Amino acid sequence: MILINKDFKVREKISVDIEERAFQFGDGIYEVIRYYDKKCFKLAEHLQRLKRSATQVRLELPYPIEEIEKNLITLMEKSPEQSGNIYLQVTRGIAERSHPFPENTTPNLYAYTMPFERPIDNIEKGVKAHLTKDIRWDRCDIKSLNLLANVLAKQEAIDNGCFESILHRDHVVTEGSSTNIFIVKDDVIYTHPADNFILNGITRLVVVKESEQNNLKIKETSFTVDDLLHADEVFLTSTTSEITPIIQVDDKVIDDGKPGPVTKKLIKSFEALIGIN
Amino acid sequence: MILINKDFKVREKISVDIEERAFQFGDGIYEVIRYYDKKCFKLAEHLQRLKRSATQVRLELPYPIEEIEKNLITLMEKSPEQSGNIYLQVTRGIAERSHPFPENTTPNLYAYTMPFERPIDNIEKGVKAHLTKDIRWDRCDIKSLNLLANVLAKQEAIDNGCFESILHRDHVVTEGSSTNIFIVKDDVIYTHPADNFILNGITRLVVVKESEQNNLKIKETSFTVDDLLHADEVFLTSTTSEITPIIQVDDKVIDDGKPGPVTKKLIKSFEALIGIN
Repeated sequence: MILINKDFKVREKISVDIEERAFQFGDGIYEVIRYYDKKCFKLAEHLQRLKRSATQVRLELPYPIEEIEKNLITLMEKSPEQSGNIYLQVTRGIAERSHPFPENTTPNLYAYTMPFERPIDNIEKGVKAHLTKDIRWDRCDIKSLNLLANVLAKQEAIDNGCFESILHRDHVVTEGSSTNIFIVKDDVIYTHPADNFILNGITRLVVVKESEQNNLKIKETSFTVDDLLHADEVFLTSTTSEITPIIQVDDKVIDDGKPGPVTKKLIKSFEALIGIN
Repeated sequence: MILINKDFKVREKISVDIEERAFQFGDGIYEVIRYYDKKCFKLAEHLQRLKRSATQVRLELPYPIEEIEKNLITLMEKSPEQSGNIYLQVTRGIAERSHPFPENTTPNLYAYTMPFERPIDNIEKGVKAHLTKDIRWDRCDIKSLNLLANVLAKQEAIDNGCFESILHRDHVVTEGSSTNIFIVKDDVIYTHPADNFILNGITRLVVVKESEQNNLKIKETSFTVDDLLHADEVFLTSTTSEITPIIQVDDKVIDDGKPGPVTKKLIKSFEALIGIN
């Protein structure tokens, strides 16, 4: 089942116009929303961020957030899976190919659900990460469809036997190719501030809040590659990865190579939020 | 008529899968090729660049360049217009949404023609340009579908009553949102070197060659915003704009506000190349 604007259609009936600006310019924005046991997690936060991305690229959402929310919930309820992801994309619409914003063109909303299981193994055992340069544009705060740099960085991770690439600009760690990165040093958690160089992840925000509620000291302060490699703990966050420990960065084992106590405490706290005990 | 891989189909029969990676990640590359009077201009050069872009993003073209060339010529010959543009896009193909390169997925080629007339008025009278920051990624040498920054810059030009935006990184002029930028100062032509910060335009290459053949001194050396504003002449190049004089940059009139002699000489030389006397 696919939601196109306000209509629910079957997958087979769906196609995209060849002059969709998302197809030719990557001219659109998106969100990936997790649902656990037929409940959307942080849906309002995702939709607020969608609205922000839309404003930043000067794109008007095709209809009000409240109605989008209602339709996404319907979509989720109709999905065969108890748990999964909602993929939501809003584009500038269909127009004869030309760079400027087209006139008399209405934005399009596309959404569908995908089955997805919690990556329990990664969360319990941790993953390896690969360091690479952050070559992306200066507006990484916008969740846009221009994801080629992210795709290339993610593939580089895979090629190096890793789960994720950690990106750095001039040795300052920004984030992962599709995740936010945290380190723990001397009982303080650090993560890059939510400026134009990172995407302010919903799970990142959850971790900031949960840290404070668990009396863990957290600083939204950037750190270097050297800080990363010599951290006591490293972890990543994302909607689909939740909180996943990073136990090795390329050849450098982080601390004793096992998920650390702060990371484990945050995972437990996160699991409580999504209704797992 | 649309070319999809090796098949020619009518526009109405064409649609793109919702999980095309071009649609969800901008994961693909493209070219725009000009044809004048049923002859493609610099087709071989465009296809060489396509091949280079493909290599850089680790995408394999679906079939050999020679056969693509043959099919594009057929497409052009079948088009109702005597002159126009061929739009050509190659994508990583259709796969369940996930950042890494999909396995067992074949790239897709899409191409079609668009009517297009030479912008004679702009070429004769010149255009205004608007200065703005270059916020794009570090691989502008790849002609990829990640064009949101270019779209936003072009729209900013339109909003400021201009034809094009001239981009600069820390006051060094790189290029336009979809054009290359040249200045003339004391009878020397300058343009940004073809490194990772610009797209090496086919018309840019023509101008470099034509300059040399016309005994005009040309340096592929970067210049600053200040150099731009105090140049004797400024012009832009692109496949669709050919060589277009820039007579004003925001409030600053360039020299006497008229297309200069070097620019006019290059335009004449270019017109000879495309068979206009």
